[in-house]
Amino acid sequence: MATQIQKDLVKSNEQYASNFTEGHLALPPAKKYLVVTCMDARIDPKSAFGISLGDAHIIRNAGGNATDALRSILISQHLLGTREIVLVKHTGCGMLTFTNEAAHEVVGKQGGKIEKDLDFQPFPELEEAVRGDVAWLKGNEGLIGREISGWVYEVETGKVRQVV
Amino acid sequence: MATQIQKDLVKSNEQYASNFTEGHLALPPAKKYLVVTCMDARIDPKSAFGISLGDAHIIRNAGGNATDALRSILISQHLLGTREIVLVKHTGCGMLTFTNEAAHEVVGKQGGKIEKDLDFQPFPELEEAVRGDVAWLKGNEGLIGREISGWVYEVETGKVRQVV
Repeated sequence: MATQIQKDLVKSNEQYASNFTEGHLALPPAKKYLVVTCMDARIDPKSAFGISLGDAHIIRNAGGNATDALRSILISQHLLGTREIVLVKHTGCGMLTFTNEAAHEVVGKQGGKIEKDLDFQPFPELEEAVRGDVAWLKGNEGLIGREISGWVYEVETGKVRQVV
Repeated sequence: MATQIQKDLVKSNEQYASNFTEGHLALPPAKKYLVVTCMDARIDPKSAFGISLGDAHIIRNAGGNATDALRSILISQHLLGTREIVLVKHTGCGMLTFTNEAAHEVVGKQGGKIEKDLDFQPFPELEEAVRGDVAWLKGNEGLIGREISGWVYEVETGKVRQVV
């Protein structure tokens, strides 16, 4: 039995596909860059950062986390021809609101069994986290010589600003 | 010195922010679901799957890989109130085009130093990979009782179809 979310997906997609004209796009991103950002529901990277279909890889996870994204970044940069990395974290991020200890407690209370040492990778300060992730990527021996910048997106205003 | 990509990002974002009216949206996704899909440049999940700003978490990585996404999925489902998971892989995926051995060889030739046992998580067959990831998520003790479906998106036609 399909859920409402599944039914809505099918219905929306029928309309999208009926107007679809971009089936010719190539696999490697045309503008040879990738964006790492948060999974947050309030971020639309395509519109907010001016990305046209086919331009760039978009990697998203909780917090716009660089270490989580590394496998994808290496594939993008070494196997699919991208040369530049744009990392964007954002104001009001969920990752600013809890500690690892608190997260494990909540999951446990809800009956979720997870590894005791799972690192949810929360961060207490936004711009510091951007700087830290960019520094980590710049120091990664798999990514030497790549252009890497770090940004903050404001979910309250729609504005993005460069941090590093 | 800003790159062309950085300049274009700033310029596009100025226009986006000048018309931005969604600063009131709440942190937890309004429709209480998350989508896991590929970083592929040819996928626009918001338009193709009918996701409005604020509706759903969108997790993206190379291949729409469930294991890579687990930290983010657990945060979304346990700390930010989502209840349903929609996993979408796609035709023409880069992950169908190489083996781990080949990927390590390419990275090495380009001077990238990475861990010898890094698993790039390629997959040889698309629908089988969708089924495998959904089964893995359904069997995860951190996600018991969640609604989980698996889909294929066709980059050639813009169409999505449910696999499981």
